[in-house]
Amino acid sequence: MTERFVDRLQRTVLDKGPLCVGLDPVFEALPAELRESGPGIGGQVRAAGRFAREVIDAVKDIVGVVKLQVAFFERYGAAGFRELEETARHARAAGLLVISDCKRGDIGSTMQAYVEYHLGLLGADAMTLNPYMGRDVLDVLAPQLEAGKGAFMLLRTSNPAAAEVQGTCEQPDALYRRMAGMIAGWQAGLAAGASGYLPVGAVVGATGRLELAELRSSCQRLFFLVPGYGRQGATTADVAGAFDSQCGGAVVNASRSVLYAFREDSGLEETDWRRAVRRQASKTQDELAAAALGGA
Amino acid sequence: MTERFVDRLQRTVLDKGPLCVGLDPVFEALPAELRESGPGIGGQVRAAGRFAREVIDAVKDIVGVVKLQVAFFERYGAAGFRELEETARHARAAGLLVISDCKRGDIGSTMQAYVEYHLGLLGADAMTLNPYMGRDVLDVLAPQLEAGKGAFMLLRTSNPAAAEVQGTCEQPDALYRRMAGMIAGWQAGLAAGASGYLPVGAVVGATGRLELAELRSSCQRLFFLVPGYGRQGATTADVAGAFDSQCGGAVVNASRSVLYAFREDSGLEETDWRRAVRRQASKTQDELAAAALGGA
Repeated sequence: MTERFVDRLQRTVLDKGPLCVGLDPVFEALPAELRESGPGIGGQVRAAGRFAREVIDAVKDIVGVVKLQVAFFERYGAAGFRELEETARHARAAGLLVISDCKRGDIGSTMQAYVEYHLGLLGADAMTLNPYMGRDVLDVLAPQLEAGKGAFMLLRTSNPAAAEVQGTCEQPDALYRRMAGMIAGWQAGLAAGASGYLPVGAVVGATGRLELAELRSSCQRLFFLVPGYGRQGATTADVAGAFDSQCGGAVVNASRSVLYAFREDSGLEETDWRRAVRRQASKTQDELAAAALGGA
Repeated sequence: MTERFVDRLQRTVLDKGPLCVGLDPVFEALPAELRESGPGIGGQVRAAGRFAREVIDAVKDIVGVVKLQVAFFERYGAAGFRELEETARHARAAGLLVISDCKRGDIGSTMQAYVEYHLGLLGADAMTLNPYMGRDVLDVLAPQLEAGKGAFMLLRTSNPAAAEVQGTCEQPDALYRRMAGMIAGWQAGLAAGASGYLPVGAVVGATGRLELAELRSSCQRLFFLVPGYGRQGATTADVAGAFDSQCGGAVVNASRSVLYAFREDSGLEETDWRRAVRRQASKTQDELAAAALGGA
């Protein structure tokens, strides 16, 4: 049987640490040497792709997972998708697990088309999903899950405005609580991995520390993809509650704090941006490993 | 001041009728003569794009609005986005209003990147949005709304499984009721159009007849994009409740029933698929106009 994605992910987290580097290449924020590739759309999109691939090269031996933020490629349409595809190939060739952060959510043959692309042609190992339309979003995935692919359903997101729709831990009827039950319930017909985790995990932000800790304890079969660490404000104390007793069960994403570390690293020149990326990724990996131990 | 998208849409609906033709080009369902363009991905994606553009040519004088289902182009990655872009240009050149049905929902600069593409580079007049992440999804749109662009937020979708997440009219605390209030509330700082409609409308399926009628009466400032008519099972009686007293306030999407009409039209050969598309679009336009009158 093909190894389940959640099992590969759990192994990677226990082996390399819980950091997932988010590849969010925003042209305007790139190092100057890359922004010189030209002001037109063609120059921008090539610079964004090149940056993402050089970040992969800088961190590939110290992290096990990367997350491609599809929006920053889609911004450039067809040209952007070419760079997205080249970047995904590059990450896979480096032996990394690749999450396509596309947050797609649709039904039937439409959802099937999204799944075919992200887990098929693009070749990501997992994709993020939006649950608003209900279980149809997950149902079409079953064959890919059997074939070793994975997914994460948005549950409690890291943005401040999330609370208005998804609720807070003080609200007994918070939507995120009901949604947590549905995400597990929709997988009733699917076999869990050897790690004990269900094939579809959940996105739970670290900025809502209480909700994260509550969900970890109430959803022991959901693997978490945890955004919000670093530039969005969550701390090691916030993420500590995301992990299981083995220091696994969660990958923690950091994007801007790693990618644009050259802006903060006063010991390095901007032309040393690759070294700044690597330094910050290594530091973050250590911080998160300590948080996982502390939270266990 | 640039005319608001909702005002252009209301004028189009009152002038040409409420039908929006959904461009969902599924290669496997295309007429045989188009499927002959080759079995590889290159052949499939060109056939899908060509079909979508020929459908536009067949209906452009009898409908005012088309909806591009992005998933059926994204299925092919970069090559698919090239066809999507050519199809959007073709629809605009034909004088049609173009809705990009992408159901994107993200935050901050990520959402900004999606908006830049769909309402900018792609050139759609409006896009569909997913509200699960909260008001951040809508907030970045304000400048585009001022510039005459529009959006529709998923509210009560047409798929059977929608009820589990979004609720039904028998549930006093149904999520769709709370969401309807939020979608209007998030637009408190935005000026309504001359038609009285707020710049961001809502997707409300015709398959939930009671919820649609209830929402029409409780959300008089939200323009509705109504899926579910035709192949998904909703009837003229179901959609009648979507319209305002002027027979406007809603566009009703039909995709497969129009696109693949050649399969049902026993009076025509498959090679006459363009005529079948046109006939079915015209018939649907008439049915919907009658439904709008009946519901007024």
